[in-house]
Formats: sequence, C-alpha cells, structure tokens
Amino acid sequence: MSFIEVNSDSDFPIQNLPYGIFSTKDNTKHRIGVAIGTKILDLSVIKHLFDGAQMKDKQNVFEETTLNKFMSLGKSAWKETRQRLQELLSDSCKILKDNNDLRKQAFVEQKDANMHLPAQIGDYTDFYCSKEHATNVGTMFRGKENALMPNWLHLPVGYHGRASSVVVSGTDIRRPNGQTCPDETKPPTFGNCKLLDIELEMAFFIGTEGNHQGEPITMDKADEYIFGLVIMNDWSARDIQKWEYVPLGPFTAKNFGTTISPWIVTMDALQDALCTGPTQDPTPLSYLTQQEPSAIDIDLKVSLKPNQSTKEYTICQSNLKHMYWSLKQMLVHHTVTGCNLRAGDLIATGTISGPTPDSCGSMLELTWRGSKPLVLDENLTRKFLEDGDTVTMTGFYQGNGFKIGFGQCTGTIIPALPLPK
Amino acid sequence: MSFIEVNSDSDFPIQNLPYGIFSTKDNTKHRIGVAIGTKILDLSVIKHLFDGAQMKDKQNVFEETTLNKFMSLGKSAWKETRQRLQELLSDSCKILKDNNDLRKQAFVEQKDANMHLPAQIGDYTDFYCSKEHATNVGTMFRGKENALMPNWLHLPVGYHGRASSVVVSGTDIRRPNGQTCPDETKPPTFGNCKLLDIELEMAFFIGTEGNHQGEPITMDKADEYIFGLVIMNDWSARDIQKWEYVPLGPFTAKNFGTTISPWIVTMDALQDALCTGPTQDPTPLSYLTQQEPSAIDIDLKVSLKPNQSTKEYTICQSNLKHMYWSLKQMLVHHTVTGCNLRAGDLIATGTISGPTPDSCGSMLELTWRGSKPLVLDENLTRKFLEDGDTVTMTGFYQGNGFKIGFGQCTGTIIPALPLPK
Repeated sequence: MSFIEVNSDSDFPIQNLPYGIFSTKDNTKHRIGVAIGTKILDLSVIKHLFDGAQMKDKQNVFEETTLNKFMSLGKSAWKETRQRLQELLSDSCKILKDNNDLRKQAFVEQKDANMHLPAQIGDYTDFYCSKEHATNVGTMFRGKENALMPNWLHLPVGYHGRASSVVVSGTDIRRPNGQTCPDETKPPTFGNCKLLDIELEMAFFIGTEGNHQGEPITMDKADEYIFGLVIMNDWSARDIQKWEYVPLGPFTAKNFGTTISPWIVTMDALQDALCTGPTQDPTPLSYLTQQEPSAIDIDLKVSLKPNQSTKEYTICQSNLKHMYWSLKQMLVHHTVTGCNLRAGDLIATGTISGPTPDSCGSMLELTWRGSKPLVLDENLTRKFLEDGDTVTMTGFYQGNGFKIGFGQCTGTIIPALPLPK
Repeated sequence: MSFIEVNSDSDFPIQNLPYGIFSTKDNTKHRIGVAIGTKILDLSVIKHLFDGAQMKDKQNVFEETTLNKFMSLGKSAWKETRQRLQELLSDSCKILKDNNDLRKQAFVEQKDANMHLPAQIGDYTDFYCSKEHATNVGTMFRGKENALMPNWLHLPVGYHGRASSVVVSGTDIRRPNGQTCPDETKPPTFGNCKLLDIELEMAFFIGTEGNHQGEPITMDKADEYIFGLVIMNDWSARDIQKWEYVPLGPFTAKNFGTTISPWIVTMDALQDALCTGPTQDPTPLSYLTQQEPSAIDIDLKVSLKPNQSTKEYTICQSNLKHMYWSLKQMLVHHTVTGCNLRAGDLIATGTISGPTPDSCGSMLELTWRGSKPLVLDENLTRKFLEDGDTVTMTGFYQGNGFKIGFGQCTGTIIPALPLPK
C-alpha cells in the first residue's frame, strides 16, 4: 500500500510504477517521472534517495531528459530502482511521506503535466507476429489458400520502420496525401489518403548497453534486453500501402506517424502477466526455442470517438497473449545475423488481432476492406477513419486486486494539406 | 591553387573539400576535418577563423564530435564555410600559410588518422532506383515479362533500413548466420550465409533542421536539404534475403552491416557534375517533376581483393548518372505523406547498375545468381564473397584538370561465428 491514494481501477498502483518523460507549465525541462495513482513522482527531485549498490554512483541518470541512460544500466539497476521506489512510496516509509517540503517538490498531478517521448529512439522496428492478422490480411490479398507466406510459421517476419515520426500519445495526425492506383489498368494519381487506418500494437524498449555488431543475442539472454512495454498505434494509409509495398514493404504508407503511449511499463511489473502463448507448430529452429512462458496477458481495447459525436465506441477488444511469436523471439531473430540493438530502440509486435471478429486490431480487418462498415450507432458507420475522428487504445494486466495499466495511446486525425494546383 | 601540395590524381584537391570525422593516436577526441591532398585540416583548431556573417556566432559547431550540428545550419552556412576554406587554403592567403605554429596544429596526415562515422545517423533509408538493377533482379526472380513491378516507373521505391549497423569504411564485416530455405518443399535450416554479396550504392546526408512532421518537402526546396554524398556498400545475404523478404522486404539479410566512405563530398563541390539523367517515361506525377538536370556524373568502381591474393581485381565500373530516379525525387517522395527528415539522416540510392554487363553493382547480377562465376585470374573465380575477401568501392567526378573524389569504401569479410551446438 502506498501513502499516495490510488483508486482500485487506476492504471498506476504501487505494483506498476511505469517510467515516462514529462514537463510542466512552470518547469518546461523534460524530466523523468514515475506514475502513481493520479500523480507523477519526479525522479530528478529525489535522485539522491537512490543510494543502493547499483545506483548510488549513477543518480545523474535521473537528471537526463530521456530514459536512454537509465535504460542502458541493465536489469540489476532497474530492479534496485523499482524496489527503492516501492519502499519510498509505501505507507510504512517516512522519508517522503513525512517530508512535506520534499513531497511538494516531488509530486506533480498528471493532469498538470505534458508527456513527451520517453526515449530518443535510435531505430524502430515493426514485426508482423499475429497469426490471425497475417491470415486475415493474406486472405484478403491472396485468397484463403495462400494467406500465410511460406516463411511465416518459421520466423517472426519484421521490417525496419521510421524512428523520426514516432510521436507521443495526444499528438494530432495529419491525413496524408500520396500516390495511389485504385485501378492498375490506369496510371496512378496523387491525392488524399482515402483508406486511413489504425493498427493496434504493443512495442518494447531495449535496455542495457545493447549487443555488439556481429554478436547475436541468444534466447537465454533475451530477457536482459527488454526494459518495458508501451501501446502503439501504427497509423496506416491502406490505399498508398497497396500500391507502393511491392517488393520492399510499406514505406510512405506508414512513415507519416506512429503513436505510442507515454508510460513504459517495465517487465518487472509484468512478471505475473507471463503466460503460455499459442502452440508453435512446426517447432521453431533451435535458436528460437524458448522454455519459459513468454506470452504476456494484456487486455487491449480500441475506442473510436467519431468527429460527429461526443461518445466513444469500442471497436476492438484483443489481448497481447494471442501473438504467435513472443517478444523474446522477435528480439533474438532481429539480431540473428549480427544486428546491434541499442538502449532506446523500439520494437513493435505488429497488429494484435485475436481469434474473434471483434478482436481484429485494424479497420481493414474489422470492416473486411471496407465491405462491412462498422455500425457504431444509428446513422453512424465507419469503413476507415474520417477527419476529426479520435482513436484511443488502452490496455492492462488484471492482477489480484489491482491493474497494471498503460494509460492511453490516443490521436486525432486532422485534415490533409490542400493539394498543390 | 592551394599552398598544400595536391597531386593531379588526388581525390581531394581544393575544389573538393569534403568533411569527415577523425581522431589521432595522441588525440582520441573525434574532430571535424576537411580532406586536402594527403592531409586533414582540423576545423576544431581553426574555428575562430570562420568569422563571416553566417558562422561567426556558430563556430562552436566545429567543436562537435559529429557533423550533425554543422549540417543542420543550412545552405548559406555551408556555402560561406566552403568559401572561407578555399580562401584559407589558397596559395594567396597568408593566414594559415605563413603561421607555422597554427599549421602544425591544424594539419594531420590522413595516414595518421582514424576515420569515424561522419554523423549520428537518426534514420537510414534505402531506395531501389536503378532501372537496370531492378530489371536484372526482377528478371532473375520473376522472368523478363514481369521484371519491373507496376509501381516502379511511377515512384522511387524505397524502404527503411537499420541505422545502428551503418559503419565506416575499414570496419570488418562478419559473415552472418541465419535462416535460409534453399528448397521450399523442405523445412528451413540455420547456418552460415553462403551467398554473401555487395551492393554498390551512393547515399546522401540530410542537412538543415529538417522538415516538420506532416509537411512534405516540395521539389523546389529539395536542394536545400541535401548536404552531400558518400559511397555505400550495402552488404547483402542473398540466401537469407530470398527466404525472409516476403511480404515486408529485406530485414536480417541487410541489418548486419552497411559500410560508408568516411568523407562527405558536398553538393557545392559537385555542381559541375550535374547532368541530365535517363528519360523518365511515363512522365512522373507533378510532385515528382524536376526542371533542372538532377543526375550526377560520378564514375564508380568496385574492386575485389580475394583472400588468396595480394592483387585487386576490378569487378564493376558504373556511374551514378545511370540512376532512373534522382536524389531530389527520392527525397521529395520520402516526405510526400509527411515523414519528417532530420539533419544526419542517410538516404541511399539502391544498387547502381549500368546498361552494360560489367556495370552491374552486385555479384548477384555480375554472376547472374552464381551461374556465371567471375573469372578473376587463372584458377581464381568468385560467385559470391569468401571469408577474407576485401571489397573496395571508389568514385570521382572528373573535373577540368582535377578530380572530385570520395576516398574509399572498403571492408573485409571475417568468418562467421561458430554455429551453436
């Protein structure tokens, strides 16, 4: 129990303690904070209290404007910091609780804070690890018999994304203009994206100093490199994607913006959420074999607030545990030929679709390419996103009497720029 | 004419003045240098001499350990710096020439310097802009009739690459292990890459502060964002690539290492090299239309020094001017949906193959998938790279009595790590 009051349905009880970067109106410096209830604990103010063996010489990482340096310290430092935070926030510890001055300086209300990207993202990678999503998309584009590509069951398929355009929750997303070719017997045209979509994903941040180039990370060490998780919306321009993606993958259909939730929930907070994932058949090659349960039970929800409405409609309910490939398998495969990861790199799962129709993580699948519009309300339907629509993704692990939540990953579509004459 | 002696066949006359990052044995700090003849001029030593309108308040950018800040200043600052450098190095200027102490501090022999990556690369993008290369590869994989994908003549096809594994010339490249499936009627296997290849490319660094997310760069402004060029070897594991690349493009087949030459040759130094490129038919959409000559005449050569030999063999001679899409078209298309570029981003052309068989920029094409081995010498052939082979790429524009050269982009293949038992 914390001396900070935390509602039972809060995303941020003392069992969670996610890290983020925030600023306030009267102190615009970007600072490292930890969410607790409706408050943020400012680590730059209490850095001197981290005096354990791991952190006592490294307190300066809490003065940084991103989490990269803290993330680079590795698992022992993360564990010690978490233990100390739980101690400092507990009802039985007087250090913060009974020091009014320090408390006033150290706590900020979340409603008074601006959140920023938690790290400088060196490289961002996106995987394609939901069998249901890959099957749905494959069926639409190539028919049921050829839905999964021959490699899909043997390796986690992934591709490099654009790091510069990853933005934090709350950032507006401009509808892109681009090149499409709705009828390939005619020349392509330039115009507004008409099939603007979401992708419900989660993503993990890399910690430790990273591996050396040419030295793959093996499965038995993979845990050490995963710092924590966020929710991600990988906005997608489906009409642009369809025309451009052969043979090298999506490019301008994705690189206009990718939104992440601001709070990184650590793997330490999610230990109880580990569970057994889908059976992998055929058995993966030995470098991808994992012994322990490596799926993660995180309930996910996507809500859409249409431009004409004040009401939010749930359009998808899914769960991270449906992913065919685990985070550790993604990480190991990413480095198998020697690619070096660095603290602050971001690796996403790909769209998380579940086995039921309402658990599809994209409008492409939910509306089956626009052929079955979502009926939100009387006279209110959606095939794809309209200008002014707001999409919010949330998620949590249900613990025994508490939630380990992620906060919100939200964004609103603003109109495209005028087309050049 | 410079007071520094420069041989007539040097890559680095006073007309060139490329920027790089170097250190020396007795001063391991990474510093900004300019190549002239066989020497490097250390800008951190002479920063106070840049006292023109653009640079007088910004001399501190020459104390940085990368070129990012200088690159972010934009075209007027680059032009003023270049003019001042040409003045300071000219035979008629006494400031450096007649100051023995300053000269001793400011000049370092290139043979005594270690070169480093010239910038912190935020994002790295690779295009696929040689029609000959795309046609060759397409013919091998899909037959002559379907060689080019329907989109290829309408937009510069590109994809995001891995920034963390871009290394500077001279860095050894470890042969990767990975997953391949030589016979798709059987399961895939794990092992050494057997078809290790090169790709002859050039790449440009982005300058200025970059564009805002959601605000594409238009053709009339594209020039302002291109700082300069390097030669690139995009090492490729063809057997791994073949199995993994559908449907999202190459991933572990490329992300183990990409080598660039250390000296960035500026666009200002290459103004005379601009020429008319291949006719674009069909005419591109208006956002990709360019009025001025936008191809660049740079002669390129690839040499292979086999492990058994002390001799270098030329295996490819090509030219950047063969590229179907120009650098400006790549840049404009990259941002068309709103992707934000940042100073220090790296954008590569894709393999530069020309119209003749000996101008193919990859061994895949030169040996037609290994079916026609390169005969280097009596009893010395190559289908793909062997351990110990060294590949060196060079390039230059032939000016009137001088060369604008790029130095070397070189790397040696070291053996793969032992396979896990």
